[in-house]
Amino acid sequence: MIDLRSDTVTKPSEKMRKAMYEAEVGDDVYGEDPTVNKLEEIAAQTLGKEDALFVTSGTQGNQIAGLVHCKPGQEVIMEAQAHLFVSEAAALSAFAGVQIKTLAGDHGAMKPSDVEAAIRGDDIHEPETGLICIENTHNKAGGAVIPPENMELIYQISKRHDIPVHLDGARLFNASVASQIPVKEFAKYTDSVQFCLSKGLGAPVGSIIAGSSDFIFKARKWRKRLGGGLRQAGVLAAPGIIALEENVKHLEKDHEYAKQLAEGLQNIEGIVIKNKVETNIILIDITKSNKTTEDFLNQLKEHGILAGTFGPNIIRFVTNNGITKKDIDKVILAFQKVLSPSLI
Amino acid sequence: MIDLRSDTVTKPSEKMRKAMYEAEVGDDVYGEDPTVNKLEEIAAQTLGKEDALFVTSGTQGNQIAGLVHCKPGQEVIMEAQAHLFVSEAAALSAFAGVQIKTLAGDHGAMKPSDVEAAIRGDDIHEPETGLICIENTHNKAGGAVIPPENMELIYQISKRHDIPVHLDGARLFNASVASQIPVKEFAKYTDSVQFCLSKGLGAPVGSIIAGSSDFIFKARKWRKRLGGGLRQAGVLAAPGIIALEENVKHLEKDHEYAKQLAEGLQNIEGIVIKNKVETNIILIDITKSNKTTEDFLNQLKEHGILAGTFGPNIIRFVTNNGITKKDIDKVILAFQKVLSPSLI
Amino acid sequence: MIDLRSDTVTKPSEKMRKAMYEAEVGDDVYGEDPTVNKLEEIAAQTLGKEDALFVTSGTQGNQIAGLVHCKPGQEVIMEAQAHLFVSEAAALSAFAGVQIKTLAGDHGAMKPSDVEAAIRGDDIHEPETGLICIENTHNKAGGAVIPPENMELIYQISKRHDIPVHLDGARLFNASVASQIPVKEFAKYTDSVQFCLSKGLGAPVGSIIAGSSDFIFKARKWRKRLGGGLRQAGVLAAPGIIALEENVKHLEKDHEYAKQLAEGLQNIEGIVIKNKVETNIILIDITKSNKTTEDFLNQLKEHGILAGTFGPNIIRFVTNNGITKKDIDKVILAFQKVLSPSLI
Amino acid sequence: MIDLRSDTVTKPSEKMRKAMYEAEVGDDVYGEDPTVNKLEEIAAQTLGKEDALFVTSGTQGNQIAGLVHCKPGQEVIMEAQAHLFVSEAAALSAFAGVQIKTLAGDHGAMKPSDVEAAIRGDDIHEPETGLICIENTHNKAGGAVIPPENMELIYQISKRHDIPVHLDGARLFNASVASQIPVKEFAKYTDSVQFCLSKGLGAPVGSIIAGSSDFIFKARKWRKRLGGGLRQAGVLAAPGIIALEENVKHLEKDHEYAKQLAEGLQNIEGIVIKNKVETNIILIDITKSNKTTEDFLNQLKEHGILAGTFGPNIIRFVTNNGITKKDIDKVILAFQKVLSPSLI
Repeated sequence: MIDLRSDTVTKPSEKMRKAMYEAEVGDDVYGEDPTVNKLEEIAAQTLGKEDALFVTSGTQGNQIAGLVHCKPGQEVIMEAQAHLFVSEAAALSAFAGVQIKTLAGDHGAMKPSDVEAAIRGDDIHEPETGLICIENTHNKAGGAVIPPENMELIYQISKRHDIPVHLDGARLFNASVASQIPVKEFAKYTDSVQFCLSKGLGAPVGSIIAGSSDFIFKARKWRKRLGGGLRQAGVLAAPGIIALEENVKHLEKDHEYAKQLAEGLQNIEGIVIKNKVETNIILIDITKSNKTTEDFLNQLKEHGILAGTFGPNIIRFVTNNGITKKDIDKVILAFQKVLSPSLI
Repeated sequence: MIDLRSDTVTKPSEKMRKAMYEAEVGDDVYGEDPTVNKLEEIAAQTLGKEDALFVTSGTQGNQIAGLVHCKPGQEVIMEAQAHLFVSEAAALSAFAGVQIKTLAGDHGAMKPSDVEAAIRGDDIHEPETGLICIENTHNKAGGAVIPPENMELIYQISKRHDIPVHLDGARLFNASVASQIPVKEFAKYTDSVQFCLSKGLGAPVGSIIAGSSDFIFKARKWRKRLGGGLRQAGVLAAPGIIALEENVKHLEKDHEYAKQLAEGLQNIEGIVIKNKVETNIILIDITKSNKTTEDFLNQLKEHGILAGTFGPNIIRFVTNNGITKKDIDKVILAFQKVLSPSLI
Repeated sequence: MIDLRSDTVTKPSEKMRKAMYEAEVGDDVYGEDPTVNKLEEIAAQTLGKEDALFVTSGTQGNQIAGLVHCKPGQEVIMEAQAHLFVSEAAALSAFAGVQIKTLAGDHGAMKPSDVEAAIRGDDIHEPETGLICIENTHNKAGGAVIPPENMELIYQISKRHDIPVHLDGARLFNASVASQIPVKEFAKYTDSVQFCLSKGLGAPVGSIIAGSSDFIFKARKWRKRLGGGLRQAGVLAAPGIIALEENVKHLEKDHEYAKQLAEGLQNIEGIVIKNKVETNIILIDITKSNKTTEDFLNQLKEHGILAGTFGPNIIRFVTNNGITKKDIDKVILAFQKVLSPSLI
Repeated sequence: MIDLRSDTVTKPSEKMRKAMYEAEVGDDVYGEDPTVNKLEEIAAQTLGKEDALFVTSGTQGNQIAGLVHCKPGQEVIMEAQAHLFVSEAAALSAFAGVQIKTLAGDHGAMKPSDVEAAIRGDDIHEPETGLICIENTHNKAGGAVIPPENMELIYQISKRHDIPVHLDGARLFNASVASQIPVKEFAKYTDSVQFCLSKGLGAPVGSIIAGSSDFIFKARKWRKRLGGGLRQAGVLAAPGIIALEENVKHLEKDHEYAKQLAEGLQNIEGIVIKNKVETNIILIDITKSNKTTEDFLNQLKEHGILAGTFGPNIIRFVTNNGITKKDIDKVILAFQKVLSPSLI
């Protein structure tokens, strides 16, 4: 099967497995796992933050950010299609007790003036604005890169109003690779940042959350409350280090393949590519095919291809490090077979 | 001062004061206040619901609805400018732990198809949709009446998906009077409904929440947790009964005055009336006046008139039972003086 | 009926009713109710605090204290039988997200050394201690007065650990009258204090919460979220002022009657008075009567007397300003009839 | 170093590392990790429950149980020294919004009659009792085994009152091995049960939560909210399977060594063994040694031994699969050197 449902499906490489096998470990609840400590150090340095913490998922990292930065009864500003709002099962409201105020963005980017206008005043009827979240790359906007310039403007506003900024950078390294701008340059305009080791970077499990030492000190206790305090976590940190040190460069290939796929599909009738393919995500509108997404996906499956639904009449492909150039060609061919069987 | 900031500023009438003075009371935490019991009975009957409960404010009624109907981690659907989202200081997320999903409405009314599309599926990333809220009349939409037909369609959808509907009817009687449709006809398409005794109806304090007996049983305990369990509450219920039995008819006058005010203002240059004036609210866009809202309100104040800000460049007038025909004329004159002083 | 179930059953006096009738009012959400403002000023001054806030109940005042002082995931220390733990329907955990750590007290008073030992350390498994609560008088301990000396010692500990102290003084004036120590002397050892206008002080509805200006600023928004932001609340504040200015002295009578009742009952066989009767509460153990509490209370009811259950085999009497010396005599006589009918 | 601080410090065996290396994996958020699925199946079967779920820690499993079983504003009954109350940083109150009511137990076992007496009634002031938790073995009681008979009696009470029972069985297999009673016999008297793969069983990371299919369905979404939804979790499940299938028998040795250690220490002056050593935990009171726990632990450390503090003047030793018979002898010798240096 050619699995393009997500970059979360990537399986650990031989090298990662070997690293797990050999990992030096300790009890990380006591802070004694040398491999975890090493990963956290590398991650903090890469992001240009004082400290970093290994967490079990991007969702856990995002929740911790909300729990550390906010108090119940506050409001958090984010883009209307942010993963934190759409796909984390309302956890932020459930745990941190905050209301989410969404702003419709342009290719995933909120207009700084919209952000400023959304910041609440002093009136007793209004919640205090407690946090601004940015997602980069923006999944629902098709892996769009939010430019550092946009982040900088929002950050400047946030500082004027004394509001922290959190970056949901689940795919931050895709943004960095696509824009050829170091992750540090993105992280600079944030108070906390989360990125995933387990998506395009290929680690089996885990994410990083980073920020000031004080932020990480508090994050550590919230991680414990969420049940993310692990014991010999070095077995996960070891492949995480490889993800960070060796797999970033592989993302270029993912992006290249995604563009090739988009090009190969663009003239096929019955589908429309919805997004500007900047990174590893392609969104395809199948309305004109007169097929349901379920039927469409099933037909692709018959050709050995897995993709995902992504809203009404939209299917999503995500290139990842299990995919080859040959796979891309097969996918294009399969589309032709599904949509114009007579032509083949 | 002619106070048009809100209908919450209404002061209790002589009759209400007398009713307070004479009210038969008991300890309502023990269910022994006969005046409270009487008010709750009348309210339930008026709304066509099994049972009703006196609460200290519309906000408290709305919060209780969320706390009874929802579980943490669920999502609540409401219009983007709903009071519950905009003006209750994020209390619903703070207390009930729910996320609010807003839909842009048309004159305050959500499109039923939008509501259905917003209901979440089974996916593990999605919160369950736990409640749909409707606000009628809709304050931010300028006191717009949500037609029962719209409510019926949404209610039908909600029942297909087994989701309760709550009506924030803080100004439900205004909707009823304006449309000449009994409140029962609105309440029919809800599982719980809240209305205020303290706005246009003129009681000094209090609101009602109504629903099934089971709903009210649970509501009573949540009211206690919120600190709304009162002792000799009959002193508030007594004017509440008068509000309900005698003041509804007065709303017609409020609406008439609002229309007269809108007519009187419509040809004055420098302002635009933003809403279709259906009930007791008038929203005025002052952008063209080249004045800030602060300046504008101060100048009105110098003419003995109080109004409120209601977003950038918007000011709000709310007619209420402290206002006379003469007051309306004075307000129109004041606008002329403020905007075209040379003409006077 | 002689109603000794609680001092919450007191009905507003003629003077209070007249005050309601005549109260000068305004919209308190806008801070414009002169009677509320006056009550809050008097209350703050009486307690020696910077500012005070009218709330609708003792429970609401206590909840607000927890919400202002604490963050979710903290722990609050209080006596094992505190009203906040036993009788507020777990609201503090529900709303403020805090865990309650209870300490068994002596006549309601926690040992300062126990309090200090219960304060949590830095370990990642431990919640931070976020608040210490004291109840004075202590209801479950039979209206016991917690001496200021005890409060002072606990306060000193709290300051060493930088933890706020809240006083649930629902019946603080009873403590003051019984000990002839001004309420200020109790309030001195607290960061926030709540007392009820509606119990022995006889107002129909309401309590006060007081503290620093900053505390009250935040309290005001939490009150709004809880639905305690009222409109023309002056109608409740007016009798509240009378409660505070004129009814404190009446508590002495309540205490005297309670002692007379206790004396009158002490030699009756089949019952044991459980508490040292210091204020207006008498707890009676009826185990030896071989009656269930239900039966016992029903038999008293047949003699025109109402009391309450207060745990297994315990019934509670609370003297209040609806009770006369004659009533006390009738109660004593009724006990004799219920317990030793042959003797009469 | 001989590390007896906890059984959490155990490092994965060669066989576990090999299993990680070779683990067949998939994306567990999609339910496609065959190794995770296998572990969950084995765990459910071992416990006699319909379904099971891999979670990242015992704390996460306990939190999920509270979140699934309870609603905010409820009360949870547990023993006063339960890990959930003492050592999970108040997470249950923070996330599930519940109050914890603790009961002092006997060797960790709550008296069934105490449990029944603690169940709350219908009164509006009382929270509903939403859950009863039992910890087995009981850590703070020194690894005490709670007999199934005790659990059965509590379970019968719970069913009469329609309240679920959760078992925090972080060390349930220790209870089973010590009592020679299958874990199923303990799990029978519960609605949900959690046990750790990472303590005595030696897996590097992870716990299991089990219950009805409906319970696990809901648990899965709460796990996602907590950030415990992992991707290629098979790398953790693989050693988990070994923990479950092969390491249970090793616990016998842990218990034997604990007993040998206790015997070897019992006649040494200056210390008192506080617990009946039933499993792998030994609690030692060092009051009579006239040393602080800090000094005492430091002196042991100089002899190459690590133990933990466990309350004032108490130190804890936990035997685990990194410990040999020789280590035990060294520890005994070290105590003699620390306490009676002149005798050696």
